[in-house]
Amino acid sequence: MKILIIGASGTIGKAVTEKLKANHEVITANHNSGDHQVDLGSKASITALFEQVGPVDAVISTTGMARFGTLEQLSDADYQLGLDNKLMGQVNLVRIGKAYLSEGGSVTLTSGFLAQNPMPGSISLSTVNGALEGFVRAAALELGESLRVNTVSPVFVTETAQAMGMGTEGTLPAEQTANAYQASIEGNMTGQILDVRDYV
Amino acid sequence: MKILIIGASGTIGKAVTEKLKANHEVITANHNSGDHQVDLGSKASITALFEQVGPVDAVISTTGMARFGTLEQLSDADYQLGLDNKLMGQVNLVRIGKAYLSEGGSVTLTSGFLAQNPMPGSISLSTVNGALEGFVRAAALELGESLRVNTVSPVFVTETAQAMGMGTEGTLPAEQTANAYQASIEGNMTGQILDVRDYV
Ligand SMILES: NC(=O)c1ccc[n+]([C@@H]2O[C@H](COP(=O)([O-])OP(=O)(O)OC[C@H]3O[C@@H](n4cnc5c(N)ncnc54)[C@H](OP(=O)(O)O)[C@@H]3O)[C@@H](O)[C@H]2O)c1
Ligand SMILES: NC(=O)c1ccc[n+]([C@@H]2O[C@H](COP(=O)([O-])OP(=O)(O)OC[C@H]3O[C@@H](n4cnc5c(N)ncnc54)[C@H](OP(=O)(O)O)[C@@H]3O)[C@@H](O)[C@H]2O)c1
Repeated sequence: MKILIIGASGTIGKAVTEKLKANHEVITANHNSGDHQVDLGSKASITALFEQVGPVDAVISTTGMARFGTLEQLSDADYQLGLDNKLMGQVNLVRIGKAYLSEGGSVTLTSGFLAQNPMPGSISLSTVNGALEGFVRAAALELGESLRVNTVSPVFVTETAQAMGMGTEGTLPAEQTANAYQASIEGNMTGQILDVRDYV
Repeated sequence: MKILIIGASGTIGKAVTEKLKANHEVITANHNSGDHQVDLGSKASITALFEQVGPVDAVISTTGMARFGTLEQLSDADYQLGLDNKLMGQVNLVRIGKAYLSEGGSVTLTSGFLAQNPMPGSISLSTVNGALEGFVRAAALELGESLRVNTVSPVFVTETAQAMGMGTEGTLPAEQTANAYQASIEGNMTGQILDVRDYV
């Protein structure tokens, strides 16, 4: 398969790229590096990316910005960042990308376990992740067999927890987190929220 | 209790108002009618509403605009309406309202079963409803016992289905839908997604 990975230079994206390039043709698009550059927050930039890359069999997004902060801390702009970038950016990958994806292809997005398992300061993330779950279920229903749409819901990645100086209990290494992305593109499920812990 | 109901003139809101006014002091705020007028899409309007109403023990929202339409039909503005009005409008009721709510008070929002049970054309609704679920879980975690936050997830209301000329199988009358709102304000749960079918 010809696979476009957006956010391939990130903690999760690097592991997904590593895992998939053994059996697939992988094209990377990051914000500042990779085969192509893209700004997930801009529809024009996403369209330009697909125009450059051309037809693909699968799109994987391992990116999406949103801001941590408590109810007291989060400003309107903080909420809007999560809605514009992590949420609508990934929604727009489906809206724009479907014209470039082969029949029966797939889009795999990234949400996160904070949707169901909040922590103090996760309000914007929990909101956006919940939204992505609702979106994926509804988009998959409409798209049927023409295009599969799933979202991977990672738990805290071990490398991320370590970089933040946090405990690693309940975390999963990026390499194991990547399994769920592989399952999404190589399997035939659609409209699913893939809990990374089910794929270790 | 002194309860502010926003959207009290709507199909669900009328039934909630009817049910609660037997045992509580109910103040209504709608877009064009009621004791007060408010535009959920405007933070200034929400602040003005709370300034007029003063301290309350509970806030119930039975409102929130979002647009039905397929992936092909929905424009950027359609998605934004759901995010600005039904999602951030209700989020802002918590952000702004908490200064006016009594210690141990509650806010009860409205999401909807389309979060988990999409239908063709529900993409924006499913997205926004999923977002509200994530928000409520995370906000409740932060607020603890100081302010309870729940969302009621209605199935199609029988009166709405009838007005749309649709079948009524699986629907619930507004009067029974209202039970979940009563349970949310009179109970002591927080961070919960109340499935209306559990309260008939
Ligand atoms: N890591 C975790 O523990 C964890 C847990 C649950 C969910 N998640 C979710 O997983 C996703 C990836 O997380 P991560 O920790 O792997 O991220 P990360 O290490 O911070 O990497 C972010 C990736 O996204 C790219 N990027 C940044 N801004 C972008 C933009 N505006 N447009 C397009 N690409 C952009 C970066 O490209 P450049 O390198 O060029 O800047 C990089 O490839 C996020 O949605 C995150 O919320 C992560
Ligand atoms: N009805 C259903 O089958 C169903 C099922 C699941 C979920 N829901 C959700 O339940 C909520 C209420 O639905 P409903 O069918 O009862 O609604 P409705 O009958 O259409 O009533 C809408 C209510 O919201 C008010 N309103 C409209 N725009 C507003 C604004 N910008 N700011 C503040 N208030 C505004 C209206 O006031 P005015 O009368 O003054 O215009 C009215 O009180 C919505 O979030 C809907 O998505 C409904």
